[in-house]
Amino acid sequence: MRPAVVLFSGGLDSSTCLAIAKEEGFAPHALAVRYGQRHVHELTAAGRVAAAMGAPLKIVDLDLRAIGGSALTGELPVPKDAPIGPGIPVTYVPARNTVLLALALAYAEVLGAQDLYIGVNAIDYSGYPDCRPAFVGAFEALANLATAAAVEGRARYTVHAPLLQLSKAEIIRRGAGLGVPYALTHSCYDPDPEGRACGRCDSCRLRRQGFADAGVPDPTRYA
Amino acid sequence: MRPAVVLFSGGLDSSTCLAIAKEEGFAPHALAVRYGQRHVHELTAAGRVAAAMGAPLKIVDLDLRAIGGSALTGELPVPKDAPIGPGIPVTYVPARNTVLLALALAYAEVLGAQDLYIGVNAIDYSGYPDCRPAFVGAFEALANLATAAAVEGRARYTVHAPLLQLSKAEIIRRGAGLGVPYALTHSCYDPDPEGRACGRCDSCRLRRQGFADAGVPDPTRYA
Repeated sequence: MRPAVVLFSGGLDSSTCLAIAKEEGFAPHALAVRYGQRHVHELTAAGRVAAAMGAPLKIVDLDLRAIGGSALTGELPVPKDAPIGPGIPVTYVPARNTVLLALALAYAEVLGAQDLYIGVNAIDYSGYPDCRPAFVGAFEALANLATAAAVEGRARYTVHAPLLQLSKAEIIRRGAGLGVPYALTHSCYDPDPEGRACGRCDSCRLRRQGFADAGVPDPTRYA
Repeated sequence: MRPAVVLFSGGLDSSTCLAIAKEEGFAPHALAVRYGQRHVHELTAAGRVAAAMGAPLKIVDLDLRAIGGSALTGELPVPKDAPIGPGIPVTYVPARNTVLLALALAYAEVLGAQDLYIGVNAIDYSGYPDCRPAFVGAFEALANLATAAAVEGRARYTVHAPLLQLSKAEIIRRGAGLGVPYALTHSCYDPDPEGRACGRCDSCRLRRQGFADAGVPDPTRYA
């Protein structure tokens, strides 16, 4: 099976993305980045989900706190119970998906993979600019100019974003059908010390509503 | 003065690039990445050159050794006295400039800067795919899709690569005219424990030949 690099956080979307990469015939290599998240539960979840799904997991350290500018790296409080409206939320991490895809590309080149998977989604959460189709296409164009493998004709990179046009409920139905172990995944931006979800941040509310809309029992442990 | 982010290693090219950004009317913010270089001398040089040139320096940690695939992150020996020919050298770091520009973009967004400087050069060292004009243009296109600042109309990013079409001798003449403290810069891939240049790696040989061709005295400390 051909290898593919799957950007992976141990959350609902990237875990579903990994299952889709397997279904599409790839041997997925999960890549997680310890970028200064507020809590360790995200990477703990990444480890247990990747293990349960039989994918090797690589974790790269990158201290994005040095750059700052986001609630997810700790300078700003995570909003609770706030309306999810238009506009870019404070949980936006400047240029995060550009950074993550760049690291995925580096890893793909070393592995000899030509396929990158990223679980971005433009429907339920259109507030992040780097979750849009035009962004994904521009990165694919860049990848095919940026690497030795592409320039020497050994690789033609494809950036797969299979969740791009799916609602959260559609993602959950798709993943449930593929056996994604959602009970092991973690989505909350601000869990309690035991790793239980707050239920009130944007990520929790989108996830909870997604399970309800999908008609799939929600296995999340809430605080 | 408008801020600009200058990718900075303390080497000859990026130090010249910083001087050009100042000359072009920007307040340069140097950004260096501790990415698992074989030696600490590069970042030591970055600190002393940025201080001498009056620019703030931000250092971000990113462990590219976890990804591997390059002589510059330690898995392969640095070639000495080897012909500099066509083809991509083992000192190529997979997707490095994509990763570095992504971090520069993140920092620019946080600073409110719209201008990125990178000291890539397509003439003397065409072996690196991510040192070519098409790559720089593709990243600029990506930057303008990737960030909240661009999408909300607060920024229109420009990637400046002022050394792209210059020979090493032309870079040195330009920098000497701008007062770049070349005696403080470091270029060697494999210095001795005191930080003195080996004189034999590709980077040393291009640098030494550049000073000779420019007719500028070479202040480098060789081992």
